[in-house]
Amino acid sequence: MFLLNGEPRQSIEISDRGLQYGDGVFETIEIVNGKSLFLDRHLLRLEQGCSRLLIPKPDSVLLAEECQQMSASSDHAVLKIIVTRGSGGRGYGLPKTVNPGRLLGIYPYPDYPSHFQSQGVVLRFCSHILGKNPALAGIKHLNRLEQILARAEWQGDDIQEGLMLDCHNHVIEGTMSNVFMVKDDCLYTPRLDESGVAGIVREIVKELAQKANIPLLEKTLDKSELLQANEIFVTNSVIGIWPVNQLEQHRFSVGAHTKTLQTLFNAMRIGGS
Amino acid sequence: MFLLNGEPRQSIEISDRGLQYGDGVFETIEIVNGKSLFLDRHLLRLEQGCSRLLIPKPDSVLLAEECQQMSASSDHAVLKIIVTRGSGGRGYGLPKTVNPGRLLGIYPYPDYPSHFQSQGVVLRFCSHILGKNPALAGIKHLNRLEQILARAEWQGDDIQEGLMLDCHNHVIEGTMSNVFMVKDDCLYTPRLDESGVAGIVREIVKELAQKANIPLLEKTLDKSELLQANEIFVTNSVIGIWPVNQLEQHRFSVGAHTKTLQTLFNAMRIGGS
Repeated sequence: MFLLNGEPRQSIEISDRGLQYGDGVFETIEIVNGKSLFLDRHLLRLEQGCSRLLIPKPDSVLLAEECQQMSASSDHAVLKIIVTRGSGGRGYGLPKTVNPGRLLGIYPYPDYPSHFQSQGVVLRFCSHILGKNPALAGIKHLNRLEQILARAEWQGDDIQEGLMLDCHNHVIEGTMSNVFMVKDDCLYTPRLDESGVAGIVREIVKELAQKANIPLLEKTLDKSELLQANEIFVTNSVIGIWPVNQLEQHRFSVGAHTKTLQTLFNAMRIGGS
Repeated sequence: MFLLNGEPRQSIEISDRGLQYGDGVFETIEIVNGKSLFLDRHLLRLEQGCSRLLIPKPDSVLLAEECQQMSASSDHAVLKIIVTRGSGGRGYGLPKTVNPGRLLGIYPYPDYPSHFQSQGVVLRFCSHILGKNPALAGIKHLNRLEQILARAEWQGDDIQEGLMLDCHNHVIEGTMSNVFMVKDDCLYTPRLDESGVAGIVREIVKELAQKANIPLLEKTLDKSELLQANEIFVTNSVIGIWPVNQLEQHRFSVGAHTKTLQTLFNAMRIGGS
C-alpha cells in the first residue's frame, strides 16, 4: 500500500525525477505495534538529505501524521518514505517550480531467523566498490546502483551481508548496513565523509557507546583491521544490531561490547525513543 | 506522451525499481523528420548497459518499432528511452523474476540559438565531482544526482555547460556532454574507464577523426591542459557538436578541426546513419 502526496496510489507520474534520475531521498523505518521507531531521527535525516540535494523540505508535521496513518494497523512492518524532486521536464537543471513527491509505503517485516540477533551472521567482502563523492556522502539518496551490483555478487542464504570498500580499499559499510568493530575494548566505525550512508542506528550506537563508556573512533579501516577485530557487528533500522560470527573465512564470537550495545539498543527500541 | 511496455501511460508503478533505486538505463535520441538518429547505436548501448547492470535486455526489434511509432509524427524532437529492472519488493537484492520496464517519451527539442553551433558556447568548471566506479563507468544509467548537483551550480543563460572532474582533478565530461580538445593538431578526450558516460556522438567523433586523419588520444586531462588547448568542443546526441568559445576566463576560437568534424558529423546526421 502506498500513499502519494496524501492520496492512496499504486503509481507515480513517469515525469517524476525520482524515476528519471534517482532524484530524491528515502528512509526505511521499523514499525512495532503501530509505531514508527525513531521517527524523529528519520524525519530529521530526511530533511537534511533534502537540504543537501536542494529539494524543498517536506512538511514534517504532515509527514509524521502520514507515518502514523500508514503504520497504525501494523504489528510489525517496514515503512519506507521517499521524497523526490517531483515532476520536471527533460534535463538535469532544477525545475523552476518544484513540487516534491512525498511517498510512503508499508512492506512486510523480513522473516529473519532470531538467531541472527543472538548468534550472529555471515559476511563477505564485495568486489563492487563505492564511489567517492563528499557531496552525496552520508545521504540516503535514491542512487543505489552500487549497492544493487554489490548485493548481486552472492546468492543463497549462507551469507547475510556484504561489506563494500572504496577505491582506496577502505571498508565503508555493508550493502544495506553500517559496520562496527571492537578491538582492544575500543569501538571503531568507518568515516563516512566521502561515501556511505550515515545510518540512524549507527548514530544511536555512537550515543550508546558513550553512555556505556566504550571509547569510539571513526576512522578509515581496511580489510585486515576488520579481520583482526575482536568483535564485529552491523546495524540498520530494520535489523537493529546483528553480531557477525564470520567474515570471509574468519570466525568471530558474539562479544561483550556487542551484547552490551544490543541490550541498550533493544531497551531504547522498546521504549521507542 | 509516454509509452510504457507498449501502452500509452502517464504513470508507472511506485514499486518500479527505477523509482526506488534509480535501477535502470536510458538513452536520449534526436528525432529529425520522424526519424530517430543513430538509433542502432543507441539501442546497442542500451543493451550493453542492461547487460552490465544484469537487467534482461529488451527486445530490440520491438523497441525499434516503438521508437518509430513514437517519433513518426515529430519534425524535430527528443526521444528518451528508459529501461528499468521493473517492479520489485523492498531491498537491493535482484527480484527472482524480472520484468523490465520499457518506457519511451517524446520531448520538445530545446530552443538552442543557432550560434551555439557556429560561434560556440561558454563553459565553466563545476566543483561537484564525479565519483569513481569502474562498474558503472560508461553506462548511461539512472543514477544522476552528481550531474544534477553540478548543473545546479549555475543559473541563467550566460553559461551553457559545466565540466566535471573526478577526485584526482581529472576532467571527465560535461554535466550532459562529452568533451574534446585539440592541441597541436591532435584530438584528445578523457578516458572514461572509471567514471563518465560513453556518449554516442563521442563514439562517432572518434570514428570521424580517424576518417579525417586527425590523430586521437584518450587520456587523463587536467584543467590546465584544457585551458591551454587550441580548440575545445562538447558533444551529445541532442546538441551534436558545440564548439567552446570560452572556458572560465579563457577564450577560444572555433578551430579548423572542430569545423571539419562538425561538417562530417552533420553530413552523417542528415544521412541518418
